[in-house]
Amino acid sequence: MRTIAPDPNFENWVCVIGPYAKPIATVKPGEPVVLETMDAFGNKLTSESQDLMKIVRFPYVNPVTGPIYVEGAEPGDTLTVKIEQIEITSEKGFSTIIPDFGGVCGTSWTRVLNDPLKPRIFKHLIKDGLIIWGQGLAIPKIPCEPFYGTIGTSPNLEAITTLSPGFHGGNMDDPDVCPGNTVHLPVQVPGALFCVGDGHAVQGDAEVSGAAVEVPTRGVFTFGLMKKHPIRAPRIVNEEFIMTVGSAKPMEDAARIAFYELVLWLEADYGIDRMAGYQLCSHVAKVRLANMVDTLYSVSAKFPRRYLPRKRR
Amino acid sequence: MRTIAPDPNFENWVCVIGPYAKPIATVKPGEPVVLETMDAFGNKLTSESQDLMKIVRFPYVNPVTGPIYVEGAEPGDTLTVKIEQIEITSEKGFSTIIPDFGGVCGTSWTRVLNDPLKPRIFKHLIKDGLIIWGQGLAIPKIPCEPFYGTIGTSPNLEAITTLSPGFHGGNMDDPDVCPGNTVHLPVQVPGALFCVGDGHAVQGDAEVSGAAVEVPTRGVFTFGLMKKHPIRAPRIVNEEFIMTVGSAKPMEDAARIAFYELVLWLEADYGIDRMAGYQLCSHVAKVRLANMVDTLYSVSAKFPRRYLPRKRR
Amino acid sequence: MRTIAPDPNFENWVCVIGPYAKPIATVKPGEPVVLETMDAFGNKLTSESQDLMKIVRFPYVNPVTGPIYVEGAEPGDTLTVKIEQIEITSEKGFSTIIPDFGGVCGTSWTRVLNDPLKPRIFKHLIKDGLIIWGQGLAIPKIPCEPFYGTIGTSPNLEAITTLSPGFHGGNMDDPDVCPGNTVHLPVQVPGALFCVGDGHAVQGDAEVSGAAVEVPTRGVFTFGLMKKHPIRAPRIVNEEFIMTVGSAKPMEDAARIAFYELVLWLEADYGIDRMAGYQLCSHVAKVRLANMVDTLYSVSAKFPRRYLPRKRR
Amino acid sequence: MRTIAPDPNFENWVCVIGPYAKPIATVKPGEPVVLETMDAFGNKLTSESQDLMKIVRFPYVNPVTGPIYVEGAEPGDTLTVKIEQIEITSEKGFSTIIPDFGGVCGTSWTRVLNDPLKPRIFKHLIKDGLIIWGQGLAIPKIPCEPFYGTIGTSPNLEAITTLSPGFHGGNMDDPDVCPGNTVHLPVQVPGALFCVGDGHAVQGDAEVSGAAVEVPTRGVFTFGLMKKHPIRAPRIVNEEFIMTVGSAKPMEDAARIAFYELVLWLEADYGIDRMAGYQLCSHVAKVRLANMVDTLYSVSAKFPRRYLPRKRR
Repeated sequence: MRTIAPDPNFENWVCVIGPYAKPIATVKPGEPVVLETMDAFGNKLTSESQDLMKIVRFPYVNPVTGPIYVEGAEPGDTLTVKIEQIEITSEKGFSTIIPDFGGVCGTSWTRVLNDPLKPRIFKHLIKDGLIIWGQGLAIPKIPCEPFYGTIGTSPNLEAITTLSPGFHGGNMDDPDVCPGNTVHLPVQVPGALFCVGDGHAVQGDAEVSGAAVEVPTRGVFTFGLMKKHPIRAPRIVNEEFIMTVGSAKPMEDAARIAFYELVLWLEADYGIDRMAGYQLCSHVAKVRLANMVDTLYSVSAKFPRRYLPRKRR
Repeated sequence: MRTIAPDPNFENWVCVIGPYAKPIATVKPGEPVVLETMDAFGNKLTSESQDLMKIVRFPYVNPVTGPIYVEGAEPGDTLTVKIEQIEITSEKGFSTIIPDFGGVCGTSWTRVLNDPLKPRIFKHLIKDGLIIWGQGLAIPKIPCEPFYGTIGTSPNLEAITTLSPGFHGGNMDDPDVCPGNTVHLPVQVPGALFCVGDGHAVQGDAEVSGAAVEVPTRGVFTFGLMKKHPIRAPRIVNEEFIMTVGSAKPMEDAARIAFYELVLWLEADYGIDRMAGYQLCSHVAKVRLANMVDTLYSVSAKFPRRYLPRKRR
Repeated sequence: MRTIAPDPNFENWVCVIGPYAKPIATVKPGEPVVLETMDAFGNKLTSESQDLMKIVRFPYVNPVTGPIYVEGAEPGDTLTVKIEQIEITSEKGFSTIIPDFGGVCGTSWTRVLNDPLKPRIFKHLIKDGLIIWGQGLAIPKIPCEPFYGTIGTSPNLEAITTLSPGFHGGNMDDPDVCPGNTVHLPVQVPGALFCVGDGHAVQGDAEVSGAAVEVPTRGVFTFGLMKKHPIRAPRIVNEEFIMTVGSAKPMEDAARIAFYELVLWLEADYGIDRMAGYQLCSHVAKVRLANMVDTLYSVSAKFPRRYLPRKRR
Repeated sequence: MRTIAPDPNFENWVCVIGPYAKPIATVKPGEPVVLETMDAFGNKLTSESQDLMKIVRFPYVNPVTGPIYVEGAEPGDTLTVKIEQIEITSEKGFSTIIPDFGGVCGTSWTRVLNDPLKPRIFKHLIKDGLIIWGQGLAIPKIPCEPFYGTIGTSPNLEAITTLSPGFHGGNMDDPDVCPGNTVHLPVQVPGALFCVGDGHAVQGDAEVSGAAVEVPTRGVFTFGLMKKHPIRAPRIVNEEFIMTVGSAKPMEDAARIAFYELVLWLEADYGIDRMAGYQLCSHVAKVRLANMVDTLYSVSAKFPRRYLPRKRR
């Protein structure tokens, strides 16, 4: 399998998703490829005693691997990204408290006059698929459940920081972007210009501190195309659920987008009357709060396949 | 066991939770009691062809059973409510589309100039613990997972509509208020003045349409007291999780409250340093979006017991 | 003129607006009356060196004068309250920084793990209608522009803390509740059960710290009734503007309510097509952010009378 | 004076503000220049009976004039933009109802299942500085108060749609961006890469329908530089006020940013203790809700110069 790796040099980091950067590779639909990713800090954290604020220099953070040109992808298509496998390529992961960033503190957007939280680095050893959390806490090892925090396709005009999720995917921090699942992303420019990164060894719902256990990875992906099949927002499918992801602020708008897209999907593909679908979601849908820390919050609405009627088209 | 039932007469419905109504019963801590509840419509729905807007007349909705005076409860205590069992006492449940109410539509608060959704009633047959959804949809029967949408104690001064969740509990619509779980509620007035109602046969996360499968119930409850143990917001515990519930708008504020309370709980009772607890939640916590339809949204933050260090006090 | 004064004893403070307290007086429509009010701290602040947290003990704050029974007021009417005059009855006013309360800091609702702001009292001398701000700041004296932060009528079932604004009026902190202006409030219970308090010597838009220059007052009011004229939310009128006030969170919902009510008012009373009224507001309306600190935010939408067509009914 | 005009050809419209487009002109600080702008619809509206949805094709809307390279501007500077004059270069202006866009309706972000509002075009004649509103409404002519809805400098990495306001300025829709006022914008790339457009003949606070009276313009600008003077967010100054603009969602976050920046400005440049400045703002600041319709809301906090102590540096 072909391996595509990001340029590790700081000056070549890709920290926006958009149509202006030259593709680093071209892939064919159906061809499994290996993509390597740096962690959200560009692999620059090595110890808990580093000066975090010298490493985290917005907006030069969260470098992704890409853009990758997918042959045949055209505006109006949907790009499908099957995540076959994720290997964590380090024996340690890091998490952080970054001042003015996080879910339960003042931030650059929810500005407060309180003193900011102090920067702090947490180092976590990873061995045999288990995370030793550290910090002197006597807790069981945490099994790795790796996924990609950032995955997206290029908007048609905008170049969006890799810190932002949105209609293009991006920094959703949704643990359902994991091996076995397929992510559907809108194609808005020729070749789709796919980017991925921000590997997480494990993450709780909401990613409340702003950091998962951040790790570099080697992942296996297979791309596909649904031709002339426009979607407005990311979707994820697996054997158990069909899922939509909304990213917006306030958080209720993220949830509204996710459910709106889910109800219209149930109507379009499964023939469920819109108001009945809305009501049925109210009885059987699941919701995942993916992130409450990024420039937009991400919420996923999940419909269990077992309650789907036969697909209409 | 003693049975306490609400007065079914419309003029005696209890539609606020507060210190101004006379208790309908007094219970002792440790004594299991049976509480009967009407559904959110006061058991007035019988068919899909009724005129919904003659039945739903805000604020005379969601009548609860209570207030119940708990012997020995004093301000500064925590009331613990073990839900032993919930029996659904009807062979049918109802759900509805109520104009200007719901999660993905204009509401009385998120006011829009678009035409409101049309009122609609859905009838669902319930048999052998299974819900036949109806509406001509060929989907499997849905197993009942009953819980109480509304459960709370009296604020000290306010009388809060039973449509509202808040620091007192109330209309959280959290499916974790279910058999086997114990709800912790702040005591702010002598006797706590407990109320419960709004039985749901099943509900998805978010209760997105504004209605679960609404049913009358007969439940078995055991009350307890944690003396001189003030809490600011509701908590729920079971064998798998310790949980906090935040209710606020916008939704991120509900999530902030839930996680703030969870992190401080980990610190106070389990000796986890506050910033470490914040970070650990970012890796292993789960979140439930309980409701996105009421006067305030409710979000629950859930910490898995398996990652708790030994309890400190 | 008759004078109605609040009971200054702490145990008799009225800190909720609702139907459960006995009226302290009955007034007739058209009869000017004098209402005295304590300041938001119950007149308990005297110096900058007091221990603020011993005085501010939620929810026993912001005591109002009332409830006042207005003869002839019935549910479905509108109560009109002409504010004829406000006299500040102290030679000093106070403002405060209250921890976990305010517009640019963590609060009880926007919970953060940052350290709270420190409590602080500011004393301001008032003389000849001018405020000497103090704190060693060499700035001009600020002219008094007194108004009432809290003014409302009873909900039908709820008793709402005097800290909250809402559809009933309440703690809107809108500087347009001032001499010369008339406030319209919904009547939901017999007698309306009017309350007023929270006099402000001057306040900026947003009341961003959570405190204006807080003062006791003596005001002259004339009540009126618009019979069988239900309104959903407070309105204010003067010679220059017709105004609506929305109170909600997030702030955009407050603004939505205000504009929705304004557009429907333009349609109902002035015959302006709904979409044309919406558009015209987009060109000539003014907005006041009244408060961004209370349990709900308050936003006022103001339509200039000079652009009103002749009144239709 | 030199005149710089945008390319009117659709394929050359500039609909993002970012570092990727080639400057259309270079200007020197201190040199007055004329900038022509197309209206938000690229001057394509001519009559009320056009098919609006064929003209408004997101994201190809709101074309701006730029980018303009300002000689000597370097990252870390502040660009000052004095707006000397705005001439409206058409005898008609247009406003619109665009489905899924606006302040009191469902939108692409506040998604609802209600039917969208219908598209509608309003034509307004402009003569002698007065707007004849039309639509059969017998209202006085409205005096023109022209300003620019969109004005900004390039982010360092992102290319941001001209529909968005933000820390870079952009589509703030703030009526204080008007003749006589000076806008301060952060410089993040060499040359600043200034863009301006979206002329409004008049606009109410909030721009509630999503449209002002949209017009093409010819404006006179003088640029200046404050070297090594970084600012985080836009500022506006005139003889009466110093102003900050926050753009965020929810709306309270926009207000928080604006007030945070204002309080820190008072501290840095006028020596006012931070908590005293916060309190003083609570007594004398004004707020303008600039827009409640764009991808982010914009709120301006305004401090009256008459209450400024002498400037410290």
